[in-house]
Amino acid sequence: MKLVTVKEIYRETDLFLNQKVELSGWVRTVRTSKAFGFIEINDGSFFENIQVVFEESLDNFLEIGKLTISSAIRIQGELVSSPGAKQPFEVKAENIEILALSAADYPLQKKRHTFEYLRTIAHLRPRTNTFAAVFRLRSVVAYAIHKFFQEKGYVYVHTPIITGSDAEGAGEMFRVTALDMALPPKDESGNLDFAKDFFGRETSLTVSGQLNVETYCMAFRNVYTFGPTFRAENSNTARHAAEFWMIEPEIAFADLSDNMNLAEEMMKFVIQYALDNAPEEMAFFNKFVDKTLFDRLENILSSEFVRVTYTEAVEMLQRENVKFEYPVCWGMDLQTEHERYLTEKIFKKPVFVSDYPKDIKAFYMRLNDDNKTVAAMDLLVPGVGEIIGGSQREERLDILQQRMQESGLNAEDYWWYLDLRRYGGVKHAGYGLGFERVIMYLTGMANIRDVISFPRTANSCEF
Amino acid sequence: MKLVTVKEIYRETDLFLNQKVELSGWVRTVRTSKAFGFIEINDGSFFENIQVVFEESLDNFLEIGKLTISSAIRIQGELVSSPGAKQPFEVKAENIEILALSAADYPLQKKRHTFEYLRTIAHLRPRTNTFAAVFRLRSVVAYAIHKFFQEKGYVYVHTPIITGSDAEGAGEMFRVTALDMALPPKDESGNLDFAKDFFGRETSLTVSGQLNVETYCMAFRNVYTFGPTFRAENSNTARHAAEFWMIEPEIAFADLSDNMNLAEEMMKFVIQYALDNAPEEMAFFNKFVDKTLFDRLENILSSEFVRVTYTEAVEMLQRENVKFEYPVCWGMDLQTEHERYLTEKIFKKPVFVSDYPKDIKAFYMRLNDDNKTVAAMDLLVPGVGEIIGGSQREERLDILQQRMQESGLNAEDYWWYLDLRRYGGVKHAGYGLGFERVIMYLTGMANIRDVISFPRTANSCEF
Repeated sequence: MKLVTVKEIYRETDLFLNQKVELSGWVRTVRTSKAFGFIEINDGSFFENIQVVFEESLDNFLEIGKLTISSAIRIQGELVSSPGAKQPFEVKAENIEILALSAADYPLQKKRHTFEYLRTIAHLRPRTNTFAAVFRLRSVVAYAIHKFFQEKGYVYVHTPIITGSDAEGAGEMFRVTALDMALPPKDESGNLDFAKDFFGRETSLTVSGQLNVETYCMAFRNVYTFGPTFRAENSNTARHAAEFWMIEPEIAFADLSDNMNLAEEMMKFVIQYALDNAPEEMAFFNKFVDKTLFDRLENILSSEFVRVTYTEAVEMLQRENVKFEYPVCWGMDLQTEHERYLTEKIFKKPVFVSDYPKDIKAFYMRLNDDNKTVAAMDLLVPGVGEIIGGSQREERLDILQQRMQESGLNAEDYWWYLDLRRYGGVKHAGYGLGFERVIMYLTGMANIRDVISFPRTANSCEF
Repeated sequence: MKLVTVKEIYRETDLFLNQKVELSGWVRTVRTSKAFGFIEINDGSFFENIQVVFEESLDNFLEIGKLTISSAIRIQGELVSSPGAKQPFEVKAENIEILALSAADYPLQKKRHTFEYLRTIAHLRPRTNTFAAVFRLRSVVAYAIHKFFQEKGYVYVHTPIITGSDAEGAGEMFRVTALDMALPPKDESGNLDFAKDFFGRETSLTVSGQLNVETYCMAFRNVYTFGPTFRAENSNTARHAAEFWMIEPEIAFADLSDNMNLAEEMMKFVIQYALDNAPEEMAFFNKFVDKTLFDRLENILSSEFVRVTYTEAVEMLQRENVKFEYPVCWGMDLQTEHERYLTEKIFKKPVFVSDYPKDIKAFYMRLNDDNKTVAAMDLLVPGVGEIIGGSQREERLDILQQRMQESGLNAEDYWWYLDLRRYGGVKHAGYGLGFERVIMYLTGMANIRDVISFPRTANSCEF
């Protein structure tokens, strides 16, 4: 008797057809008539269920007929083809053992539940089709990203989560402390004495690993991070979470154009990998979550991404006869409405917008010769807008120092970052990719809370 | 002219030999005589350097001869074999362009530095041989772990970093807050009012993803986490950091024996992968860091891991004529001295010790029929001691509730964890692997601070 998984049966059917098999899994549905019955089980290994037929010859026929949803069972029987039926094969049970009976009040009975409700039972929702698909895809895509960079020889760097650095203006930070908050130590002037905290200083949760990973880029040439990042921003939107994962590659001896090449190649690799390695899940999303999904993804795979400068983009938007909520003028940050108009209406494919005004971008982005813009780039995709943001980094010490001063940063806090410019700091570039944004894009799921196992948002930190 | 990396030249020498190539990298050494000179460069792509020969026919011969260490250059020239020399080939430069001159006070001049000193320049230390090897290996091993689980169909789960759960007794936790700590809000009774904090409750940094990932195990059968975990423990040892990465697989329809099988298979896979995919780095460690390394690793690869129960292990240790600092008696937790004696002296290979007394283990470990021990297991390896800890989980609701009560835990806080036992909670098991411990084991590095890019320990949170 072969112990097999449903995945093996689907993927290598010929090996198991007309053989005795042993399976274990969780009951999704049970239907019975007088003399026989059907059970659909899911064994966790695969998106699809498998059907088990059982007959009254089983000792425990009546018991099996009354199995509650989500009970765990072990089945021994023969895998037979079932031509004409919904599924190509089924297991004719010779023996069914009940491993764990599920209570009758199991919340996921066979009816549709709202995503909002399912968030309240986030510990059970991966047992539904939608969330089984979302979270297996999330795993597959995480691996695709590692595979992409590792096969190119990039070094994966775990940049620190707890940081003593300031926000770099990237967003509000959470504080990390081991002090007794009800009775924190004070210094002589009555101020909070962080010198007595665990790290002997104020510490926070990181908002980006970029500055840290740049140091490794100057050693390993091509590097990337993939880890959690945090924002203490009280924005209750469908696209923001307080805790999310980010991928940040950084490449040396490389400029903004190399950076865009890498981003384009990575996006195409990841999409193709998802289609190839999670075909059942992707088909499910295309059918039930977003019927334009396959079209959208095919469009990306077959397009050469457009590249325009911010200045060109502003002129294009101004030429359009469209009333935007925020009228477009040079110097402003592009809003989602502008980004989506560019990628969806004007180009109908992914667009890199580059060379933004320096005043709306971070201090570490490389100043262009015009002294007005920096070598920044955003990748805009139809349906979402911005999905990647990156830049060539300012490698010239004097200009970097000046930009830090203009940004009100204290150069001493960044001594090690400035050191990179002192000791062989070649041109380099990198970008950040919000992992959840990618998953939303690849699934069509509209709320970031539905692509994170246990989402953390303002006023919500359950499970 | 082919733009190549040093890795490509070493790995596919035949493709490039006697060809014109273009390379860029950082200067490691320069030697000159009157008419010619040698530069060793490292381009970040590979552990080894490549030698560049340059002659006085170069326009900038004098300038090149004075290049400072860590300056970045671009070389065009021919790759020629150099029989008899230390290296099998070198580049005969036709043109050398200086991309970035390093300042003369570059701290990593050609002399040995202590690991302690190098920690103070953690932003530069990956440019040394030792740390280049450590951190490339870390990347390779991280990928090996993903590859191992993904190719088996395991689902990678990002369990939350910020948690509202209590410590589960796993260790001291860091608090996460967005409150103004100098002036925190108080409730009517004058207590700190966490309801006004970002998440509307007290929150901390996770010490383990296990309880969360068990929920996904009951949906996907085989799952794993790989993410940062935290301990606010003021232990200033070479083996503890406040922030470290952990791998936690969890398998359903599986017991303690399956769990040990998985751990053994994983360890062997990871070691073999490291030897195959980072041969230069591993040879370096074996030569310069720990001369027993290859022997140790070969021993693991060729051994079937021993399995003994805690009770057997205690009896064995008691039979030995050895004076331990802590005398061995049944019921005590094994100390590192005992663990190492078992694996190094008695068995001389890796040992699983299983079925520990319940009173020294966590509430979620499955109670054995003897009512005295639980289905826990630790993997002990020569040279380190414990490297993996795991258990079969208590899947029986009533016993779990009783164990929680005995442990002083509030069952209401764990309603979702208990739900898993209500709704088809089959037998399952899992373990935790401290990623840094593995890296220390695979490199011979003795201090955890030297295998983390920017380590966080008591009173230290630099960079």
